[in-house]
Amino acid sequence: MEDLMPTVTFLPGYRKVTVPEGTSLLDAARAAGLAMNVVCGGQGKCGKCLVFIKSGNVSFEREKFRKFFSDPEIARGACLACQATVLGDVLVDVPEGSLIQEQKILVEIPGREEIPLNPAVRKYEVYLSPPSLDDTTPDLTRLLEGVEAVGGPPPNRVYAPLGVLRYLPQVLRRSDWHVTATVALVPGGYRLSSVDKGDTTGRVYGAAVDLGTTTVVVYLWSLVDGQILSTASNYNRQISCGEDILSRVNFSRKGGLARLQHLAAESINEALKSAADAAGIDLEEVFEVMVAGNTVMTHLFLGIDPGYMIAEPYIPVVQRMLSTAARRVGIATHENTGIYTFPAVSNFIGGDVIADILATGMTEREEVTLLIDIGTNFEAVLGNRDWMLSCSGAAGPALEGGEVLFGMRANPGAIESIQIDPATLTPTYTTINSIAAPRGICGSGLVDLVAELLRACVIDRTGGINLEIDHPRIRKGRYAPEFVVAWKEETQIGKDIVITENDIKNLIMSKAAIHGACMTLLDAAGLTARDIERVCLSGAFGNYINKENAITIGLIPDVPLERVENIGNGAITGANIALVNRKRRKELDGLARKITYIELNADPSFMDRYTSSCFLPHTDLSLFPRVQQMLEACRLGQGVGSRQG
Amino acid sequence: MEDLMPTVTFLPGYRKVTVPEGTSLLDAARAAGLAMNVVCGGQGKCGKCLVFIKSGNVSFEREKFRKFFSDPEIARGACLACQATVLGDVLVDVPEGSLIQEQKILVEIPGREEIPLNPAVRKYEVYLSPPSLDDTTPDLTRLLEGVEAVGGPPPNRVYAPLGVLRYLPQVLRRSDWHVTATVALVPGGYRLSSVDKGDTTGRVYGAAVDLGTTTVVVYLWSLVDGQILSTASNYNRQISCGEDILSRVNFSRKGGLARLQHLAAESINEALKSAADAAGIDLEEVFEVMVAGNTVMTHLFLGIDPGYMIAEPYIPVVQRMLSTAARRVGIATHENTGIYTFPAVSNFIGGDVIADILATGMTEREEVTLLIDIGTNFEAVLGNRDWMLSCSGAAGPALEGGEVLFGMRANPGAIESIQIDPATLTPTYTTINSIAAPRGICGSGLVDLVAELLRACVIDRTGGINLEIDHPRIRKGRYAPEFVVAWKEETQIGKDIVITENDIKNLIMSKAAIHGACMTLLDAAGLTARDIERVCLSGAFGNYINKENAITIGLIPDVPLERVENIGNGAITGANIALVNRKRRKELDGLARKITYIELNADPSFMDRYTSSCFLPHTDLSLFPRVQQMLEACRLGQGVGSRQG
Repeated sequence: MEDLMPTVTFLPGYRKVTVPEGTSLLDAARAAGLAMNVVCGGQGKCGKCLVFIKSGNVSFEREKFRKFFSDPEIARGACLACQATVLGDVLVDVPEGSLIQEQKILVEIPGREEIPLNPAVRKYEVYLSPPSLDDTTPDLTRLLEGVEAVGGPPPNRVYAPLGVLRYLPQVLRRSDWHVTATVALVPGGYRLSSVDKGDTTGRVYGAAVDLGTTTVVVYLWSLVDGQILSTASNYNRQISCGEDILSRVNFSRKGGLARLQHLAAESINEALKSAADAAGIDLEEVFEVMVAGNTVMTHLFLGIDPGYMIAEPYIPVVQRMLSTAARRVGIATHENTGIYTFPAVSNFIGGDVIADILATGMTEREEVTLLIDIGTNFEAVLGNRDWMLSCSGAAGPALEGGEVLFGMRANPGAIESIQIDPATLTPTYTTINSIAAPRGICGSGLVDLVAELLRACVIDRTGGINLEIDHPRIRKGRYAPEFVVAWKEETQIGKDIVITENDIKNLIMSKAAIHGACMTLLDAAGLTARDIERVCLSGAFGNYINKENAITIGLIPDVPLERVENIGNGAITGANIALVNRKRRKELDGLARKITYIELNADPSFMDRYTSSCFLPHTDLSLFPRVQQMLEACRLGQGVGSRQG
Repeated sequence: MEDLMPTVTFLPGYRKVTVPEGTSLLDAARAAGLAMNVVCGGQGKCGKCLVFIKSGNVSFEREKFRKFFSDPEIARGACLACQATVLGDVLVDVPEGSLIQEQKILVEIPGREEIPLNPAVRKYEVYLSPPSLDDTTPDLTRLLEGVEAVGGPPPNRVYAPLGVLRYLPQVLRRSDWHVTATVALVPGGYRLSSVDKGDTTGRVYGAAVDLGTTTVVVYLWSLVDGQILSTASNYNRQISCGEDILSRVNFSRKGGLARLQHLAAESINEALKSAADAAGIDLEEVFEVMVAGNTVMTHLFLGIDPGYMIAEPYIPVVQRMLSTAARRVGIATHENTGIYTFPAVSNFIGGDVIADILATGMTEREEVTLLIDIGTNFEAVLGNRDWMLSCSGAAGPALEGGEVLFGMRANPGAIESIQIDPATLTPTYTTINSIAAPRGICGSGLVDLVAELLRACVIDRTGGINLEIDHPRIRKGRYAPEFVVAWKEETQIGKDIVITENDIKNLIMSKAAIHGACMTLLDAAGLTARDIERVCLSGAFGNYINKENAITIGLIPDVPLERVENIGNGAITGANIALVNRKRRKELDGLARKITYIELNADPSFMDRYTSSCFLPHTDLSLFPRVQQMLEACRLGQGVGSRQG
């Protein structure tokens, strides 16, 4: 008998199978081990099991299903596998699109390597068989069984919110039982977030949010193909209740918590709205929002009292990742949108730093990475995929231009990079937005300035200005010895822009705090600077800083330049990663628990390390071998100071 | 060394352990394998590790902990094990209350056997160590770790709603870190439902609700000790939108769904309020509500459209058990109260029948049980713990007094039981509330009447009245031959209360539908009436019916009387069981899926069985051997009819 039965051969791959006459091509394909795409369950309704008959004989009412095929497809012998039956030997070409494929899309995360697209929210298009007297399965079960048949989770693991059940019967019937179900992986199972008419599988969006103290940044993603649709940013409108974290916590303690919560949500909503408008999408189709913020910002956004964090013994209410409904926190997306906040390690190592860590990729790597996020407060994390230590502290405002006479934030007109000719002491500088006349000097400019003055031997290793150098730019100054960076004629402010010895000392204290912290972490890990295989600088400061100069002044340990990397806005990068890949997201709580926090104030050795770091670059030059070489070269005659001093 | 160390002996049981001097009695008890009750973690704060020193030497500052002990306890040598240290050999008596015990409370469910108390909501009293610079664990983690230490679930399985996190830091501090956490087992994990100041472990309440079409019944339970605190009932206020299910579904289809939802919630709220007032408790401490209702009532209560259930092909939106938040459906209990609705098997075998099944205990037993819930519609379930078949149908209103000339509902003044002297044909009857003059006859009275008339040979097996009998109570009647039950002088209505041949035929059709259904179930299971080991009658009708007469007329199969059981309001009993025992509740969805539903209208044999049942008791007397015997005895001369006919 067997050799009388027709043989069906499937291209590409020439898979052969022998089946009884009258078998559908779909069943033949299954018998050949091919997973055909049959959304409608083989009813000829979805048109997704398209195949081409290369040769041989099948029975198929092509006119009945004409609507599914283009003319060229007809010309190639288009059939629906589920509706065609085998009459004799046949050679069938199966296009790739007709096979169910494991989604293996790689997502390019800005500033990071590619990661697999694996979102927690997915859509499932289903063609359900309508109920009948012979099949009285309830609507919900019918839907969830259909979803399972096309790769969704088992029905009994899916929670259906009342809101969805209240419109489910109508949407199923109005769409003639062809709907798209949106299913989200949530703690403890899955949630049926939405059921929509027809095929909406192309539209599943998610948002990553960096909720900063000053700025809110939003990235809007298509979770179908892992593309960024748009980005937007906004001021954090909480600024009206206080510039810095501490004043906002105080505002919240005086009954302002609900207002701060509202302002955080509104700031995010505005950014979401701009991003959605730019992308031409509806926020109702955003099903997940991943928010990275520091510990206080996360509390405020969720409306949880941060008050106990600012007084001894400094206790947060919650550090774990929280998931909550958008409507509970006033985020204007779909009513079943899940909002996730990054977990924290401590009050100071918050969700933003966890996001930074994710952004560095250090959770996946064996090499030892030192992550530093520099601001008025700094955070440092040392480790690799197996262990991590962290600490944080106050660097003071000097590196952001505060407590420096002509210091300023990184705004247009700020000197952002400087070179000084060691022979003439003439500075060459660039300003932000290339505005010709400078207004002041921002952090990256200050780092350059101190490094260049040291190289030119204008200042010594304690930061003292050598007044013995006879040069118009070096003068006694009103408050302290100073160096003129720009003459008033060059500036926008009608004043000489100078850096004073006091400014330099403030900068040294700031950098010493950061370097001392890094040394404390290294020491706690039993490592030295030589063991650091990678330094990652996070935040705006890291993006603009001259790495070599940062090493020269002893801000970061002396490692080969190619090992220093700017990761930019690590908070948004980490939020992006956790949004598009649910596996990475799931690991975050475990990651946060794994990170040991070292309290610098409680570590007596930190003060010693800080004091030793209060030099350029450090008391112990053996820690900075390359800087030592450079300084020796300078002393050997290149710097003005070395000639005259 | 070892033999120089003191030995501590614990009573009862004489467990001995050798420990170094200075060891606390608590550690010694642990070393001896005793699980002491230490809610405060051994800080001397909770007073729960009370022990008595029978002899020997310990160091213990009794005055400091005086408040924990009564005078007789002091006299017996009361100590806190955690605060007493061993100075030498010592003999310690450990009262039972100081040991952690598995809660093994048995709950008496009205009308059922006892079941173990195993509620899904539990309270955990904890004394937390206050945070310090050395222990900066966040509030939530601190609490959940404390809860785990006293037997609660692992912290990472507990979901903390934002509402709780928003007051958590205040309640912890205002209560000096002595709080009670309420934790509920929910689908996918646990929920931290509430955190309250001090010890509130005595107050965890739950409510079971029978949401009937006409009446709402509420039982209020203490989930601490498995006691019923109070019960209440209320009219279902949906009646204002329609008397019966069908008219309510129609009302809902005309835009009245939200109103019906609201009325259902309000009906329950009012009953909850009365019950809470009677028990003197606050509804804010009710953490779970278990609702049993038929499929339509469940849809209406949840605000889910039942409209597609009443038109072909009769599809419900949902049959599974749903859990939802009280506030989502307007139930006025704690904001984190979980509302659970019973699952259904079909449109007709709803949550009320699943509750009936639970009430019969048939899910646990090997014996074959036949459950019948009799009303205008009836439901029947046959099976045991391994298998179950069900069906439902219309019995017509006759058994509830409808379509019967002097029939009435079971209200005061209705004749509820009747005996007829076969010699004189004089009826003796009782009325509901023993009102002297009757107003009509209710269902149980009608069953008695037909059985007695059959026994007295006034009617034949087709229900025809033998007009040949010459007796004033037997007469031609205006519409049909009739029998006078009460002369007008005896009644409240100034008319003879009679039963007509038409009435009897209507009653026969009603009982035939029920009996035919039972036979269909038996046949589908390959069983006969002899295999029925138990018949359970649910609902008010079952409660008042004379079992023997029910068999005599062929309403229920002919089984020995002792096998027939009235389970009363099975819906509330089932709801009670599912409320107090979470294991039983968890099995409900699986139970509902396991029950096969037989569509009688689609079963051609049902019509034959119905027709064969349209006799008293049945065409085939061999199915009713005891009734056959009885009838033969009557014919042999006891009935008036037999003498005269």
